[in-house]
Amino acid sequence: MQRLGVVFVVLTTFLPAFSLAQNQSQRGSDLLFKLEADFAKAVAEHGRSAFVTYFAEDGVELEDGGGITTREEIKKQAAWPEGTSLTWTPVHADMATSGDLGFTYGNYVFKSKDKDGKIVASYGKYVSVWKKQNDGSWKVAVDMGNSSPEPK
Amino acid sequence: MQRLGVVFVVLTTFLPAFSLAQNQSQRGSDLLFKLEADFAKAVAEHGRSAFVTYFAEDGVELEDGGGITTREEIKKQAAWPEGTSLTWTPVHADMATSGDLGFTYGNYVFKSKDKDGKIVASYGKYVSVWKKQNDGSWKVAVDMGNSSPEPK
Repeated sequence: MQRLGVVFVVLTTFLPAFSLAQNQSQRGSDLLFKLEADFAKAVAEHGRSAFVTYFAEDGVELEDGGGITTREEIKKQAAWPEGTSLTWTPVHADMATSGDLGFTYGNYVFKSKDKDGKIVASYGKYVSVWKKQNDGSWKVAVDMGNSSPEPK
Repeated sequence: MQRLGVVFVVLTTFLPAFSLAQNQSQRGSDLLFKLEADFAKAVAEHGRSAFVTYFAEDGVELEDGGGITTREEIKKQAAWPEGTSLTWTPVHADMATSGDLGFTYGNYVFKSKDKDGKIVASYGKYVSVWKKQNDGSWKVAVDMGNSSPEPK
């Protein structure tokens, strides 16, 4: 019975703490997946201009083949031509225990018209770091992508 | 005098809190810069094999032109040929207030021998997300790079 008592104490002491941490971690990931879904929906609706809305004041995009692009520079970029689209699918998300900094990474598909007006797709991966702002909103602190082989 | 009293209360109440947050943020960035310097030193000494040491069990590298590479897959990769080197310079670092998740981004220079044995450099940017592990050590959760134009 003493051994059962120890098991009881262990279960009631550590399992709730473990379970709490697991729940918190799950909630953090869920929030990050939701942020990505909101961002992706805005990009589907508004194209490139949605990036400015979702980027922190000091957020940057590390553009493939380009430099470290600030939010101010993104703001000045031309809108995407008709037929251009970007979709992405997070495969993993993780949040700090303080719940104010997190990231997701995953895969993207970028589609645009070639010179003959035919829609062509290019494939890649991305990582986004999200940071809770002083006003409570969540914004992108860093966004980066690079190319992947075409899926088979 | 009443106004001076208010100023005094504001200064003694909020400034230390602000200053504490600033100090904490600075300490977080300093730690991340130090982690990058340690990692870079290990890569300078041991090449590609240093990556395994610095990656979390569930850490991934989002290789430019490749897929989502796990730590187990990195472990199986061939050592870099003689003459290959990778150096990088963080330009920004930020840490969660809980001090257990942070990131840096910056620029890298990758050097390798071409087919004629001449060392050629390629330039790019990177982002690394660092996560404090259960044993207190810091490991890379995600590492990604893409190309930049050659600096002028």
